[in-house]
Amino acid sequence: MKIIVDVMSGDNAPLELIKGAIEASNEYKEHEIIVVGDENVISDVVVQNELQLGSITIRHAPDVINMEDRALAVVREKRESSMSIGLKMLAAGEADAFVSAGNTGALITGATLIVKRIMGINRAAIASILPLTCPVLLMDSGANLNVTSDNIVQFAFMGAKYMEKIYNVERPRIGQLNNGTEYNKGNALQIESYQMLSESGLNFVGNVEAKTVPFDTCDVLVCDGYTGNIFLKSVEGMGKFLMGTLKDVLRTNVVTMASTLTMKAKIKDLKTQFDSSEHGGAPLLGISKPVIKAHGSSDAKAIKNAVRQAIFFVNTGINDDIASFALDYDDKKLLADVEKLYDQT
Amino acid sequence: MKIIVDVMSGDNAPLELIKGAIEASNEYKEHEIIVVGDENVISDVVVQNELQLGSITIRHAPDVINMEDRALAVVREKRESSMSIGLKMLAAGEADAFVSAGNTGALITGATLIVKRIMGINRAAIASILPLTCPVLLMDSGANLNVTSDNIVQFAFMGAKYMEKIYNVERPRIGQLNNGTEYNKGNALQIESYQMLSESGLNFVGNVEAKTVPFDTCDVLVCDGYTGNIFLKSVEGMGKFLMGTLKDVLRTNVVTMASTLTMKAKIKDLKTQFDSSEHGGAPLLGISKPVIKAHGSSDAKAIKNAVRQAIFFVNTGINDDIASFALDYDDKKLLADVEKLYDQT
Repeated sequence: MKIIVDVMSGDNAPLELIKGAIEASNEYKEHEIIVVGDENVISDVVVQNELQLGSITIRHAPDVINMEDRALAVVREKRESSMSIGLKMLAAGEADAFVSAGNTGALITGATLIVKRIMGINRAAIASILPLTCPVLLMDSGANLNVTSDNIVQFAFMGAKYMEKIYNVERPRIGQLNNGTEYNKGNALQIESYQMLSESGLNFVGNVEAKTVPFDTCDVLVCDGYTGNIFLKSVEGMGKFLMGTLKDVLRTNVVTMASTLTMKAKIKDLKTQFDSSEHGGAPLLGISKPVIKAHGSSDAKAIKNAVRQAIFFVNTGINDDIASFALDYDDKKLLADVEKLYDQT
Repeated sequence: MKIIVDVMSGDNAPLELIKGAIEASNEYKEHEIIVVGDENVISDVVVQNELQLGSITIRHAPDVINMEDRALAVVREKRESSMSIGLKMLAAGEADAFVSAGNTGALITGATLIVKRIMGINRAAIASILPLTCPVLLMDSGANLNVTSDNIVQFAFMGAKYMEKIYNVERPRIGQLNNGTEYNKGNALQIESYQMLSESGLNFVGNVEAKTVPFDTCDVLVCDGYTGNIFLKSVEGMGKFLMGTLKDVLRTNVVTMASTLTMKAKIKDLKTQFDSSEHGGAPLLGISKPVIKAHGSSDAKAIKNAVRQAIFFVNTGINDDIASFALDYDDKKLLADVEKLYDQT
């Protein structure tokens, strides 16, 4: 298997990204890592930091997409960027998966326009694991501002497949993020999606309020990307805020040194749990080939974990399941439309 | 001043509500507390629990609005409920403020239809203080599913006045909750509101991401009620979840008993911070007279604090400021419309 790593994008590029690619290459020796980026920059970083690329190959890309670039840059003014070239290699079948910590908007746009969606899937979604005790997959966490109820059902199906195959969850529980649990809560979108999810054959457990999500209420949480993004960031922000408050409590504490050390170890465990780098990256579900969005602040460990995730993704064959579902879903929609047409005439 | 307390609504009604009213009456002796609810039920609770109503008067209301009732029940099938009668007393000038821990939808509907909005204010909003180190007022936290940019600007103004008068914040910083900080982030609503807030004369600090809200980025956070509700509940849920995780850490800890006790005290401080009962209730800003929504799970202390908040609200004359702003805002809108009309002809 060949995994492409975009080593030029992200807050800690290129050093941490290159280190992550090397760690992945050493750990998953049976697979091939290709790093894409400016050849000279990569060589300089390798020499200056006394790194060993080993079996890693470099694909030259002269340009880089920054956080400030517009999403469309990936197919317009920055077609020679590491992200753009990596996605084109993936589309051309030169590799099996692509990992990038770069500009989210550009990555979604590039994945959709260059790698293309799975036939029948109307919108790809960012599938983020929420950093809670029990993993909850948030679909969509920010790829689509506005969605339809069809999109929501597709998010639910794709998310369920992901949790089944990657996290070994049997019949994943699907919840719809909403402002109340009753079927008629929310806007027209949530009310319609509720109905459709109920009839979808998925293990739909109904609407879920934000306050109960941390308490093992569902395995996949579906919503539009705007709400999902606000929710994901509030979970991240609150985790960070509370860990900070906790540190203050420990600092002003008068316990013995020994106990503080024990406590510190426990707190570190807790911190690990909320550390997004442990979870690797977020795949863009619905894209015809695996594209993994690593967190912008990814370090070497996070990149290595994102590569591991890409390998899992390919190995489990999730996309085949999604493709056959999408065709089926499309057929059913078509049939329903035909029936409506007959009823009217 | 006369404050009405609806003692029949809320998870802990009537006992905790009656206790809270008595505590408030004992603490704020210069003011009069009127409890509204079923006379017989109240008398029984008072006798059985050996309570003393003291100077509190009872207004009889034979019916109660439950959590399951539809919002419109307050003006239709349950016009004789404690909430409905309390709101009618407020509207008729028989008291200065109303406190209820009941059905949120019914309270907003009743406040809007019975007590009425301040002239020129298009939508009332629930103003909740987020339980963080620095108080942040969330406008709207759930009164309105769909809002316009005019509503958002009015939320911002009302919220600013509230933080100025109740929390002594000078020139409160207004942030718009959004999925990114740039001016063009979000849907048409957020983009338009950004522009209008920039020109509003308020201390607008721009779009704020959910993850930075806990870190003192703004004093008032504006958004539609759907997003606000999701955000408020995620903050509540994460607070509860993390406090629970922390308890587990402490339980499995091997520190000496003495240090655990010290730690426990610190943790208790932390818990108090996230305890919504400390903050009293959430006023419905934009209603012509003070209506305070106490948390559904309010205990006696929370009710006492909600009464204190009602007294503050009346004393600081916030509604006069909101009324004069609303008239001014209306005039400006009218002038802008007239100008547009002239430009076109």
